[in-house]
Amino acid sequence: MTLVEKMSSGTGTDIHWRSINAIRFLSADAVQRASSGHPGAPMGAAPMAYTLWSRFLKHNPANPNWPDRDRFVLSAGHASMLLYSLLHLTGYKVSIEEIMRFRQWGSITPGHPEHGLTPGVEATTGPLGQGFANGVGMAMAERMLSATYNRPGHKVIDHHTFALCSDGDMMEGVASEAASLAGSLKLGKLVYLYDDNGISIEGDTDLAFRENVRERFVAYGWHVTDPVDGNDLDAIERAISEGIGETERPSLVPVETTIGFGSPNKAGTASAHGEALGEEEVALTREALGWDHEPFVVPSDVSAHMGAALERGMERESAWLRALASYRSDYPDLAEDLERDLSGELPAGWDLGLDELIGSFGDDTATRAVSGKSIAAIVSRAPLLTGGSADLAPSNNTTVPGRGDFSSENRSGRTIRFGVREHAMGAVCNGVALHGGLIPFGGTFLIFSDYMRAAVRLSAMSGYRVIWVYTHDSIGVGEDGPTHEPISQLMGLRLIPGLTTLRPADADETIEAWRVAVSHSAGPVALILTRQAVPSLSKAGAQCGARGNVERGAYAVRGCDGVPDVILIGTGSEVQHALGAAMALEAEGVKVRVVSMPSWELFESQPEEYRESALPSSVRARVAVEAGTMIGWERYTGLDGAVVCMDGYGASAPGAENMERFGFTAEKVAAAARRVLGRSG
Amino acid sequence: MTLVEKMSSGTGTDIHWRSINAIRFLSADAVQRASSGHPGAPMGAAPMAYTLWSRFLKHNPANPNWPDRDRFVLSAGHASMLLYSLLHLTGYKVSIEEIMRFRQWGSITPGHPEHGLTPGVEATTGPLGQGFANGVGMAMAERMLSATYNRPGHKVIDHHTFALCSDGDMMEGVASEAASLAGSLKLGKLVYLYDDNGISIEGDTDLAFRENVRERFVAYGWHVTDPVDGNDLDAIERAISEGIGETERPSLVPVETTIGFGSPNKAGTASAHGEALGEEEVALTREALGWDHEPFVVPSDVSAHMGAALERGMERESAWLRALASYRSDYPDLAEDLERDLSGELPAGWDLGLDELIGSFGDDTATRAVSGKSIAAIVSRAPLLTGGSADLAPSNNTTVPGRGDFSSENRSGRTIRFGVREHAMGAVCNGVALHGGLIPFGGTFLIFSDYMRAAVRLSAMSGYRVIWVYTHDSIGVGEDGPTHEPISQLMGLRLIPGLTTLRPADADETIEAWRVAVSHSAGPVALILTRQAVPSLSKAGAQCGARGNVERGAYAVRGCDGVPDVILIGTGSEVQHALGAAMALEAEGVKVRVVSMPSWELFESQPEEYRESALPSSVRARVAVEAGTMIGWERYTGLDGAVVCMDGYGASAPGAENMERFGFTAEKVAAAARRVLGRSG
Repeated sequence: MTLVEKMSSGTGTDIHWRSINAIRFLSADAVQRASSGHPGAPMGAAPMAYTLWSRFLKHNPANPNWPDRDRFVLSAGHASMLLYSLLHLTGYKVSIEEIMRFRQWGSITPGHPEHGLTPGVEATTGPLGQGFANGVGMAMAERMLSATYNRPGHKVIDHHTFALCSDGDMMEGVASEAASLAGSLKLGKLVYLYDDNGISIEGDTDLAFRENVRERFVAYGWHVTDPVDGNDLDAIERAISEGIGETERPSLVPVETTIGFGSPNKAGTASAHGEALGEEEVALTREALGWDHEPFVVPSDVSAHMGAALERGMERESAWLRALASYRSDYPDLAEDLERDLSGELPAGWDLGLDELIGSFGDDTATRAVSGKSIAAIVSRAPLLTGGSADLAPSNNTTVPGRGDFSSENRSGRTIRFGVREHAMGAVCNGVALHGGLIPFGGTFLIFSDYMRAAVRLSAMSGYRVIWVYTHDSIGVGEDGPTHEPISQLMGLRLIPGLTTLRPADADETIEAWRVAVSHSAGPVALILTRQAVPSLSKAGAQCGARGNVERGAYAVRGCDGVPDVILIGTGSEVQHALGAAMALEAEGVKVRVVSMPSWELFESQPEEYRESALPSSVRARVAVEAGTMIGWERYTGLDGAVVCMDGYGASAPGAENMERFGFTAEKVAAAARRVLGRSG
Repeated sequence: MTLVEKMSSGTGTDIHWRSINAIRFLSADAVQRASSGHPGAPMGAAPMAYTLWSRFLKHNPANPNWPDRDRFVLSAGHASMLLYSLLHLTGYKVSIEEIMRFRQWGSITPGHPEHGLTPGVEATTGPLGQGFANGVGMAMAERMLSATYNRPGHKVIDHHTFALCSDGDMMEGVASEAASLAGSLKLGKLVYLYDDNGISIEGDTDLAFRENVRERFVAYGWHVTDPVDGNDLDAIERAISEGIGETERPSLVPVETTIGFGSPNKAGTASAHGEALGEEEVALTREALGWDHEPFVVPSDVSAHMGAALERGMERESAWLRALASYRSDYPDLAEDLERDLSGELPAGWDLGLDELIGSFGDDTATRAVSGKSIAAIVSRAPLLTGGSADLAPSNNTTVPGRGDFSSENRSGRTIRFGVREHAMGAVCNGVALHGGLIPFGGTFLIFSDYMRAAVRLSAMSGYRVIWVYTHDSIGVGEDGPTHEPISQLMGLRLIPGLTTLRPADADETIEAWRVAVSHSAGPVALILTRQAVPSLSKAGAQCGARGNVERGAYAVRGCDGVPDVILIGTGSEVQHALGAAMALEAEGVKVRVVSMPSWELFESQPEEYRESALPSSVRARVAVEAGTMIGWERYTGLDGAVVCMDGYGASAPGAENMERFGFTAEKVAAAARRVLGRSG
């Protein structure tokens, strides 16, 4: 088919095509006004998005948080104007003024969709592949919650998850990982539209992407419909119906589109992807598609037609609320649990199990082991915690006891087997958190946090409630060697705004870290845990306990009163050496304070008075010890202090030997303190 | 087949099976001795590895650097003892004592293979998926070099790239991306063995990995042989032959194996994967496989049989050297170029084009644009530079002019189209560097360095000569918004030991940064570049130029002499504001020094004297300005200084507005300086 023929098939005068053209021109005009953005994808994908939203999507524009709504994720986040147009036209609180302020300071219509900023945006997308995997997490959450809460005759959780994906999404490894996982888990209520426009930024996708995407998805265990013409509304509708009808497997609907559809000179070219079409070309496009409305003017018939979504949505949510009331009357306890879980609140006494654990670890214990017991203690009272590992569960201690694995055979399982797919784990956990009703956690070795960093960043940027469990946190890893020994990862996580990191020093600090992590509803928390056993701080010389202190981020564990001569700051497995050094220095008459600093972020959120009391600014003789990178620690040690740290990579040798050889001993910390104090050791 | 039947088919008394058993027991015994490691994969994969190495692999144990050797990558790096056993038995400089010191301090047999440490280890592997993608890069390099240098009758570069991959590799997104790229590029000389043992750490791969791997690879455009029994040597040989015979597509040979083969109680279980079998079980395994040799004793017939690889290898390399001599006689200039490229040396005058660029940018220019011109200037004289972008070439300015795209149709092309696959780009560039003969670079937006961080880390750890080109380096990105605006990425890269970062401030600094990057043979370099135009420093008030100074990492650009009252340190697009602030402060009578600091690492490698002259330690009034995270800058500003930086995420708005609103102005820098100096502004 020639472009002209295609174009004549991709427009029309009935209300459907008028609605589609309204979406196209809101998008093209907003990009034009901003002189920046991506007009091509919205113009090509408008028919499929319109079809999905008008004929299938269960949602209520008046309440973007209705728990049983279908989820729609725009994985191709650069097509943000497509989504903003749909939100505006269907009655979400996205005004035409906001559309006109696309990509401007203070608007709710940023360049890429941001969850939490714009009503109806289900996930923050733009970095490609993330939304694809978020949707998989949402569909998993739906299955988990429905298995937990639905009862015969009562389907209180029963919705689909849709996404719109681009060629770029399909190329990203995180999406491949998530697709394989979704197929393995037989997530039959996942239906993804693939906007197959054959163009990426550098040009034709043939440049680098000649694979058969459909066959690949079949190999993953997906149901893949026949490809449909992106301008054939009936075919799109049939294909989506087919995808919804297939309940055993996730469905992919490949839709063949033309990027920049309607633009006489730019349709089908890479230049339609990421820049405004230009005033003249927008005018030509108006002509080509027979759209004679001024920019940002939505004809009243389109407004009425698309806006009907609002009333339909309110009716649907009302029906659901009635069903929920009936459920509440039949299953009052379950209903209470469901509503609490959906609210994100924790059950009363959720952390009593943690209280029982405090002080119960007599021997030296690895903090990862304590973490595993903490998870067990929490889920016994707060079963909304779900998670697992990227195939390292026996090492990460991340199994959720009691309900088995979440699988196609067991939707009630709460241990997630992510496979060797760290990045998808990150983005899937984000999706579970976005869905609501569950608190997800994902575990791997700290070194592999690098594989999933893009997902962790989005969790922090948009404040998703996820817990990252990173074990094997230093050269204490030992024999696996430098490929597996994190050096820069912990500080690298501290760099991410909005992420709260905790590196507990012993069993009690670990239990408290979990208390903080589960309570922390404002964003993600990363727990940094040892492979190797560490002594309890009290055994190692601490004079104060963790309870009530870990949440402050840093606290004096020895030499708590008065003004010390020197402050030794440690985290995790190195606090013991700070304590050892303190005792040696005290014997020399030095007044020492040891500060355990499990969390920079929590410490820095304390009142100035507390921070000053913990780290008096007059004391410039300071030594920090952490088996990681030095960069960053100068924040606390300044130009006059010292840092006992790694200045290169680790080694393959027993962990204790590594620690000793790389200088993580009380002696080396004491020697650094003497140097800082000007006492030759 | 039952396990016992399988076992009887997986051993024997002829020299082949004795060699295979020697590999198995060197592996199991070394792991046992270390009480740590992964015996299962070597025991299951020994027959295929033996077959490949004894019947196909073109290599010379006496010279692991022979340029035209076949490459063998152990992507399943945890099976390191398999590789060390092969290296030892075939005559590489890996002694039995080193095998006995597996995973011990100072040995050359670390837990996971490390390139550069152990002769014959082609790539540092262990983090899964990396080796898979490294091999794709090696195969690309082979095709590029052969197209450049081979002539009729002279195949001076003509070798295969093999890899051994595990289930874990197959699950990782980076391998999926690389597989799709390899298929699109029709890398017919790539032959990968897939050790399909059905077991990962958490248990049966069915837990999370039910896809059809073979079909997936067919969809990528690979040739996939029928699955073969991992103990059927003839079938393995036939399948590898078939893979080698297929020259149009990369080949995957799925080999069905039993993890921990031979161990009566642990074969086929996850417990054979990652821990020593135990003394007793090793003894039972000896019995089961009929192996009555003491640990670390290699029977002389096996030594002789396997050791014959040495002589064969020397003969093959000699033949190649003779062929090279004949080539040199027919094509002396080409031969000279080839040998120089393979040595990693740069042609004389390689950077004359950069000299010509210096000072040639009159108007404000984006450093990414200067970078693009620098690439063009370099490749005109040093065509060993090859690279591209993860589908952002028009934005990253990373096209190599003159030779077209590297593709299945054009093997001489030097622009690589990686597709939207940042992680594979990282690992593929690493593979190109590992191959030798080329200097690869890979570009994307700085924000997406997160996607490829695991590959960047390995390049730094093992000192691969790669150049990472990261553009769009701050909130100056503008309208694309916070999803695309790096905050923590630059500091995050500085955290990686062995990586040299450079964030040039203007056109001339960018040209010098490229000079440094291409010259730097000891490890990777990351260039951090602006989207937006920046003025030349001289126009912005600088008194000294970049030439000869960028390589020092930091240098005074204004107020160069005497002891200043305050030091303003800036990088990249913020140096202009430090200069603006200096001029304002000078007008108030303050003595100001402005330091441009493009590279922390280069500065820190300068002699103490230079560092002290640039940043006199007596001057504690210091302000740093960088549109990124604060953490880290305290290294230079201490407890008494100030940092003008980002403390959260960016915004979607025009870039210049972002800069202004987030406080990156001369006024804000001057105000910070006044505060530090105790002068209320």
